[in-house]
Amino acid sequence: MSSQVKDTRVQRWDLFELELTGLEVGNPYLDVQVQAVFRFNQRCVKVDGFYDGGSSYRVRFMPDATGEWTYETQSNQAELDGVAGTFTCVEPEANNHGPVRIRNDNQFAYEDGTPYYPFGTTCYAWIHQDEALQEQTLRTLEESPFNKIRMCVFPKNYSFNFDEPEHFPFEGSAASGFDFTRFNPAFFANLEARLMGLRKLGIEADLILFHPYDKGRWGFDRLDARTEEFYLRYVIARLGAFRHVWWSLANEYDFMAEKAMPDWDRLLRYVQDHDPYVHLRSIHNGTKMYDYASVKMYDHAKPWVTHCSIQHWDATMASIWRDQYKKPIVIDEICYEGNIPQRWGNISGEEMTRRFWDGVTRGAYVTHGETFVHPQDEIWWAKGGRLYGESAKRIAFLRELIEAAPTACRPIPEVRDVPAFGLPGHYYLHYYGIHQPLYRIVDLPEGETFRAEIIDTWNMEITPIEQPMSGTCRVDMPGKPYIALRIERI
Amino acid sequence: MSSQVKDTRVQRWDLFELELTGLEVGNPYLDVQVQAVFRFNQRCVKVDGFYDGGSSYRVRFMPDATGEWTYETQSNQAELDGVAGTFTCVEPEANNHGPVRIRNDNQFAYEDGTPYYPFGTTCYAWIHQDEALQEQTLRTLEESPFNKIRMCVFPKNYSFNFDEPEHFPFEGSAASGFDFTRFNPAFFANLEARLMGLRKLGIEADLILFHPYDKGRWGFDRLDARTEEFYLRYVIARLGAFRHVWWSLANEYDFMAEKAMPDWDRLLRYVQDHDPYVHLRSIHNGTKMYDYASVKMYDHAKPWVTHCSIQHWDATMASIWRDQYKKPIVIDEICYEGNIPQRWGNISGEEMTRRFWDGVTRGAYVTHGETFVHPQDEIWWAKGGRLYGESAKRIAFLRELIEAAPTACRPIPEVRDVPAFGLPGHYYLHYYGIHQPLYRIVDLPEGETFRAEIIDTWNMEITPIEQPMSGTCRVDMPGKPYIALRIERI
Repeated sequence: MSSQVKDTRVQRWDLFELELTGLEVGNPYLDVQVQAVFRFNQRCVKVDGFYDGGSSYRVRFMPDATGEWTYETQSNQAELDGVAGTFTCVEPEANNHGPVRIRNDNQFAYEDGTPYYPFGTTCYAWIHQDEALQEQTLRTLEESPFNKIRMCVFPKNYSFNFDEPEHFPFEGSAASGFDFTRFNPAFFANLEARLMGLRKLGIEADLILFHPYDKGRWGFDRLDARTEEFYLRYVIARLGAFRHVWWSLANEYDFMAEKAMPDWDRLLRYVQDHDPYVHLRSIHNGTKMYDYASVKMYDHAKPWVTHCSIQHWDATMASIWRDQYKKPIVIDEICYEGNIPQRWGNISGEEMTRRFWDGVTRGAYVTHGETFVHPQDEIWWAKGGRLYGESAKRIAFLRELIEAAPTACRPIPEVRDVPAFGLPGHYYLHYYGIHQPLYRIVDLPEGETFRAEIIDTWNMEITPIEQPMSGTCRVDMPGKPYIALRIERI
Repeated sequence: MSSQVKDTRVQRWDLFELELTGLEVGNPYLDVQVQAVFRFNQRCVKVDGFYDGGSSYRVRFMPDATGEWTYETQSNQAELDGVAGTFTCVEPEANNHGPVRIRNDNQFAYEDGTPYYPFGTTCYAWIHQDEALQEQTLRTLEESPFNKIRMCVFPKNYSFNFDEPEHFPFEGSAASGFDFTRFNPAFFANLEARLMGLRKLGIEADLILFHPYDKGRWGFDRLDARTEEFYLRYVIARLGAFRHVWWSLANEYDFMAEKAMPDWDRLLRYVQDHDPYVHLRSIHNGTKMYDYASVKMYDHAKPWVTHCSIQHWDATMASIWRDQYKKPIVIDEICYEGNIPQRWGNISGEEMTRRFWDGVTRGAYVTHGETFVHPQDEIWWAKGGRLYGESAKRIAFLRELIEAAPTACRPIPEVRDVPAFGLPGHYYLHYYGIHQPLYRIVDLPEGETFRAEIIDTWNMEITPIEQPMSGTCRVDMPGKPYIALRIERI
């Protein structure tokens, strides 16, 4: 019996890992159970360990309180059972704010209280590309404004992305078939390395656990219920201790003809029951056609959904969803900036930027993606690589503005005829989008003084209005699209 | 007893008028009844006459069949009773196609079978402006692509339009009060002259019978039920014989707090019961806020509604409404091109043009309006006058294309990811709007040859694609917004 601990000093919300050496008994994925109980004062947390190939078994844990923790393993294998120890959980470093949680119904904050505004992007199959392209994706992300990424565990068999990946989550290959009772440690080692790469950049990983873009090629879209749960338990055991993981049960769940609504309820609840860290959980819908009636959203009111992950092209709907669900609204697909033939993948940079602003000033969050035709089909939305569009730098500009606003900002429906985000009496951010008023009348409190700025959201120019304002005032506007108005109390 | 007939030869669908001289008995509007029965072969049509001030009573009639018609009056006044005569209905002139009717559920045609595609505009209160401005409006319309106009009978008391008009439909004035039992012939004479001006230009008059923009100033928004019907009967007697009149029961009916749904049903049915010519009938809704749920449309499925007159900003909804109502869909307010502070009145010319194309390629009809800030508040949407925007000439371009398409065109939902209007196997018009594909794959019948053209809907340029097409083909596209693709069988 041997065990090894990487580090006995672990930051709060960082990853403690215990490696155990054991025997390769039968099919260890199925036949060996290993768990550990972690204790802190009166509290104990029981977590699953996992088999990592060869003679290696691991237990991972994310401590959420500073001080001394003890642990002890339990196993049906003697050499893995009763391994005990302690470690010290220390204060987190400056860039570690813990997992993202819900605050004030419709917003997010890290566990340490720092507000978190998701400005996400989408690279569904970036971890299934070659090493160089994966590295390129991380370099691009580093320069980007994005602090969340939607990405799939399973590989993708879909337009512009039909290559066979190097690694699969299960043992086997497309040619020889897959053994759905055995995982592939090499696949997960790469996934984990990529997750650590994202964490270093401050990017949350919105991990998509199931998706329809397999179409029977590998069979990962049609696992039986037992295999689905076997897979989820393994994923949670391996990845649950990564503080920046979110669970997205599916992308376009309604396009998976093999599953019905009770399956999605069961799978979401399974994750809820087995994740000791209560990571964020949601599920993303498809859109069949152009019209509102054909959008089949999951009922995000169900208690095991922490936030709404919605595909829809119209951010104005956010105001309705916000009231309806009383949960954060993340529009995780609002079409992609690009020029491919498909309707969902060919909006302009102006339009993507407009949709971001429209959603954000309605108190929602919008997710980016890019789909420009590329000679080698290196399209960001699927493979990662490079960004070619014009919206990313405008999203960076918006993110700066929003992060500089008071954290208590919310939509202000009392401001008529324009989405307005702010804190009444203190701060207002109007977004006019395609509308081009030549002036506006604004109602501000009497007896307080405000300064206003015209923001050209496309050219990223902020022009102060010289005259301080108070009470009911007329503001001259440029009479062109894509303008915001920021008003702050002096 | 004297009577006078303007012309005993009347074109089919033109206006026959019999003027009778009578006594001014009591209140002739209330106390004198005069009607006439018009007979043609086995058929008879009974119409109301009306008192026109002084000693003048008139009966108007629109004959719908060529040949000899006879008529005879009935009245509770001896001098107006039993006046009989004949007239000859002759073939219409080239520009007279009769009233507009419904064809094939979702379309319009004139009664002579000529297809009619409404490309309307909006000048709510143009007949309430001074003479010079009314004349200017007609001159502007003459140069415009518009073949329908939305206009109110009652004057308007609303932003940018608070002037007192010269004439009111009822006798009296704002200062002295109105006598709701007496009409004002001078008002109607002007209205009729303006209607004839429109008719000469081939413009249908979508006449708005009630509206909320009074707010009690004159009281026309809060007539009692008896007065409402008294007014409708007079309007029908005077204007029903104008072939180009449509009845729009209200603008933004739901903003008239004084009326409830049963009132609107009653008023629509009253018009249906009293109009011998079965003119088109509809009723237009308001939109309270930004979201779809707040739009309170009248139930256009009711049998007394001939077509849907809808206010909505999103033409994509047309596909749903078309299937839902099986009636023509006219989006009679989709926001206005302009730059006033109000959300509904400050979209760009690009956006107005886009909404037209989007609606039309979904098999709907869209109505224009313009609201540019003007030093004298001469804003087209209210007062008429001049057009300043950029959409009108693009709407002219669209109208030419649509009128040149086969009349059997309809939306083709089988064409994926883009609204397509056409006749499968013969003609296709795709509209890409904000979408900017770099290429498209189109499925055309094998064994037939087609020619395709790229249409820049903003710059109004049509660029033929050299290579004829057949079967499944790739079409290279410019990868920018506002592009249409037209494909026609050679």
